[in-house]
Amino acid sequence: MSERRRMLLGAVVMYNGSHALHGLWRHPEATDHRDFVDVKQWIELARLLERGRFDLLFFADVIGAYDVYGGDWKATAREGVQFPNADPLVLLAALATQTEDIGLAATSSVFLQNPFALARQFSTLDHISGGRAGWNIVTSVIQNGAANVGIERLPAHDDRYLWADEYTDVALKLWERSWEEGALTVDPASGVFADPERIHEIGHVGERYRVGGPHQVPPSPQRTPMLFQAGGSEVGRSFAARNAEGVFVSASTPESGGKIAADIRRRAVAYGRDADDIKFLVAQTIVTGGTEEEARRRDAELEEWVSDEGMMAMLSGHMQTDLAEVDLDRPLDDFATQGMQGMLADLRESVPPEQRPHQTFRDVLGRFWRARMVGAPEQIADRLEEWHEAGVDGAMVIETVRPRSYVEFVDLVVPVLQERGLVQREYAPGTLREKLFGRGPHLPASHRAHSLPIPDDARVPAAVD
Amino acid sequence: MSERRRMLLGAVVMYNGSHALHGLWRHPEATDHRDFVDVKQWIELARLLERGRFDLLFFADVIGAYDVYGGDWKATAREGVQFPNADPLVLLAALATQTEDIGLAATSSVFLQNPFALARQFSTLDHISGGRAGWNIVTSVIQNGAANVGIERLPAHDDRYLWADEYTDVALKLWERSWEEGALTVDPASGVFADPERIHEIGHVGERYRVGGPHQVPPSPQRTPMLFQAGGSEVGRSFAARNAEGVFVSASTPESGGKIAADIRRRAVAYGRDADDIKFLVAQTIVTGGTEEEARRRDAELEEWVSDEGMMAMLSGHMQTDLAEVDLDRPLDDFATQGMQGMLADLRESVPPEQRPHQTFRDVLGRFWRARMVGAPEQIADRLEEWHEAGVDGAMVIETVRPRSYVEFVDLVVPVLQERGLVQREYAPGTLREKLFGRGPHLPASHRAHSLPIPDDARVPAAVD
Repeated sequence: MSERRRMLLGAVVMYNGSHALHGLWRHPEATDHRDFVDVKQWIELARLLERGRFDLLFFADVIGAYDVYGGDWKATAREGVQFPNADPLVLLAALATQTEDIGLAATSSVFLQNPFALARQFSTLDHISGGRAGWNIVTSVIQNGAANVGIERLPAHDDRYLWADEYTDVALKLWERSWEEGALTVDPASGVFADPERIHEIGHVGERYRVGGPHQVPPSPQRTPMLFQAGGSEVGRSFAARNAEGVFVSASTPESGGKIAADIRRRAVAYGRDADDIKFLVAQTIVTGGTEEEARRRDAELEEWVSDEGMMAMLSGHMQTDLAEVDLDRPLDDFATQGMQGMLADLRESVPPEQRPHQTFRDVLGRFWRARMVGAPEQIADRLEEWHEAGVDGAMVIETVRPRSYVEFVDLVVPVLQERGLVQREYAPGTLREKLFGRGPHLPASHRAHSLPIPDDARVPAAVD
Repeated sequence: MSERRRMLLGAVVMYNGSHALHGLWRHPEATDHRDFVDVKQWIELARLLERGRFDLLFFADVIGAYDVYGGDWKATAREGVQFPNADPLVLLAALATQTEDIGLAATSSVFLQNPFALARQFSTLDHISGGRAGWNIVTSVIQNGAANVGIERLPAHDDRYLWADEYTDVALKLWERSWEEGALTVDPASGVFADPERIHEIGHVGERYRVGGPHQVPPSPQRTPMLFQAGGSEVGRSFAARNAEGVFVSASTPESGGKIAADIRRRAVAYGRDADDIKFLVAQTIVTGGTEEEARRRDAELEEWVSDEGMMAMLSGHMQTDLAEVDLDRPLDDFATQGMQGMLADLRESVPPEQRPHQTFRDVLGRFWRARMVGAPEQIADRLEEWHEAGVDGAMVIETVRPRSYVEFVDLVVPVLQERGLVQREYAPGTLREKLFGRGPHLPASHRAHSLPIPDDARVPAAVD
C-alpha cells in the first residue's frame, strides 16, 4: 500500500462554556462547559486528543462580549455566548508541560496587545512546549472589545488588514530577523552570554507601530510559531497567501473547501511560495455513535438543546448586524456585513444559482447546526475522506458536548481513519512545523519573513518629551 | 510555647540567565542559568521551594534591554544582564499545574500591555492556579523598553505613578466591580449562563485609559491577584500604602527595613487600611554551608565570578545614568537619578551622617554583593531573625547560583527556622491571600478597590470614525 496524503486532525475549542453551538451547555452531559475555567478538564482533553493522535489543539478567542444583538451584551451573557472567556495563551502554557506532542495554537487578535508583548509571549510558549506553538492571526475586533483595549476608532473590515499586515511584520522581524543563529553563545570561557554583534534591533517605524527591538527572547525551537489564519474575504485570502502556514477554511461543501484552498495556493505561488506551504483545515461538527441509528437518535436529542437566541447573539456580533431587528426571511443577496464575508459567500455558492435569491438570514442561522456530519464511524470517515480528496488537508473537530464529542471521535472515528491509512498512528518527531510539513523547524526559505527589511544600525530614536 | 509571628519566605528570580549578581552565570555549577529557558528546571525549582514551604515564587521582569551603559545594550547582551528575558506570566501558567501551594507572582509593568489584557491574563492565572496568583505592579520602563511597546514619551519618574494609578484602578474595577458574587449562574434549569443584571461595565474613561468592560473572566478564587509593589520613592511609598498587600523593600539594615515598613504601614492606616494589611519582604543574598568556614570559603569562591561590567550595565539602566561616564569615586550626595531612589536614600542612611559625604558610586556598585549574608545555617537564621524582629515580615531569597542557592537554603536554613517556630512546617489551606493573611480569599473590606466608582449604566461610547 502506497502512503496516502495524511489527513490532519485538530480540535477547535474556546476557553469558555459555549463556543459555536449555543444552548448545548445545558445538556445533562455538558458538565465541562459549565465548569469551563477548570484547568483539569483541559489537561484531560489535551491528553485524550494525543491518544487520538490529533495534530492540533486550537483555541479561538474573542476580545470582549458580543453586543450587537438587541443592542447590548445581555443575551450574550445570558446564553454564555463565548462570554465569559478566559485567556487562551495562559491556558496553553499550562497545557504545554502536561502534553508531549500535540500542537498548541491560539488566536490573538492584532488589537489585543502590542506586537512586542505578543512576540515575547509566543516565543516563550514555543520554548516551554518544545516548539509546538501556533498563532492564529486575527484581524477582527468587536465593538465592545475595541472599547476594552483602548481603540479609539474601529477600523473598517478591509482596513483592519493594514493593521494586521504591519503587526505581523513586526512580530516576524522580532522572531526571524533580530537574533542570528548561534547568537546565544552562553560561553563561560569567553564570558559572552549573548553576542551583541549577532543580535539586531529591528528598527520598525511604521504608520501604526513603532518597535525598536531587539527581540527579548532568544530563538525558540520554531523561531516563529506556526502561523494560522482564518479570513475568508478577498483581503483575508491575500493575507493568508502571503503569511499563513495553516488556514482555517469556512466552507459548506468539499467542493467549495477545495476551491478556496486551490485559490489561496495559487495566490501563495504568485507570492513566491510553494503550493504545499499551506495546510487547509475545515471545522467539522460531528455526531456519531455505534451505528447510524444511534448517531441519528443522538443528533435529534442534541438538537433539542440548541438555542436560537444564542446563535443570533453570536452571529449578530460576527456580522455586526442586529438580527433582532432583521426579518430573518429577508433575502441574503447583496446584504453587506462587516464580517463573515467568506462564510456568507460560501453559503451563497453552496446552492445552485437559481436558488440564491431565495436564501435568507434564517439559512445563516441554521448553517452551523445543519452543516454537521451525522452517522456511524465508517460514514463519518467517508464524509471526511470526501473533504480530503477535494483538496482539504484536515478536519478541525468542533464540539457538540465536551468532552463527549472528542471521546467518541477518538474512540470510534480515529481508528477507522487510521485503518484507511489517513490518520497517523504515531506522532512524527520534532516541532509542530516538522510534524505537519516534514520539514523545519523554521519557516521555509520562501517565506517573506526572511526578507523583511531591517535598517542597518537603525535604532528607533529615543522618545523624548 | 506561644506561637511566633510567622516569617514569610519567597524566592525572587527572573526568567533569564543573570538576575542580580552578574557574572555568576559563568560559575561551573550555574548550568540552570545557562539553560534558563528550559521549563523543566523551573518546575524542579518550584517543587524544591514547596518542599521548603516557601510562600512565594516571584518573577521580576523588565521590558527590553538596558541600554544606558556605554550608550547601548551591547554590554547588557554580552553579560546576559537580564537579557534575554522570556515572559514570566507564561512560565507561571506552566508552573501552576505542576505545583500545589506556592504563590506564583510576576512583575508586569503598566507599560507592557493594556490593563484589560493584563486583567484577563491574571484572572486566568488565578483560576488555573487555584488562587495563587500575585501581580507586582511596576511603574518603571527603560528607554529601550519604551521604544518596544510604542510609548512615544517616556514619562518622568513621578509621572509614571499617574499611569500606574489609573492602570491599577482599571484592573481593580474589572476584578472587583464588574461581576457581582453569584453572577456566573450556569444554571441549566433557567438557561441562564451568566446573569447580565449582576454583571457591570466599568465605563472607565480616564486621562490615559479608556476601558468599557465588563471583565471577560468570571471572578477567580482571589478575584484580584495578591498585589505587590516595590517602589521606594516618596510617590512609590504612597502608592504602596494605598494599594499593595506585599511590599518588596530595598534596605541595607534591619533597622532601615523596619523603618520603611513602619512608614508605609502608617501611611496605609491614614488611607483607612489596617497596619497588618501589608506584608514587607526584603531580598536577601545568602551564602551558607555546613559550617561558617565552609560558607566563607564558598563566598570567596563565588565572589571571583562577579562581573563589574555586568553590575554597571544593570545599575546604569536602573539609574538611567551611564556609569561608564561617571567617576566611580565621585560622591553620591545630591546626585539625582530617575530610578532606585529608595535604594540610594537607604544606602545613604545606612552609614552615620559624618560618613555620608564620603559615599561614592563605587559603594552602589558593590552594594548588591556586599549586602549578602554569609555563615553557617544557625548564623543565617540569626541574621534573618534580626530582620524579622525589626518589623520585616519575610525574606525573598535571591540566587547566587541557581538552583544551589535554593537547595542549600531549603536543606540547611529552613529546618533551623522551622525549629525556631518561625517558618511554617505545613502550608495553610486556601488561596495565596488566605495563606499569608489568614483571611480572604478576597481583598479586605478596607481596600480601596471596593469603593472605586462605577458609573450607573455608563457605557464607554462606541468609538466611531
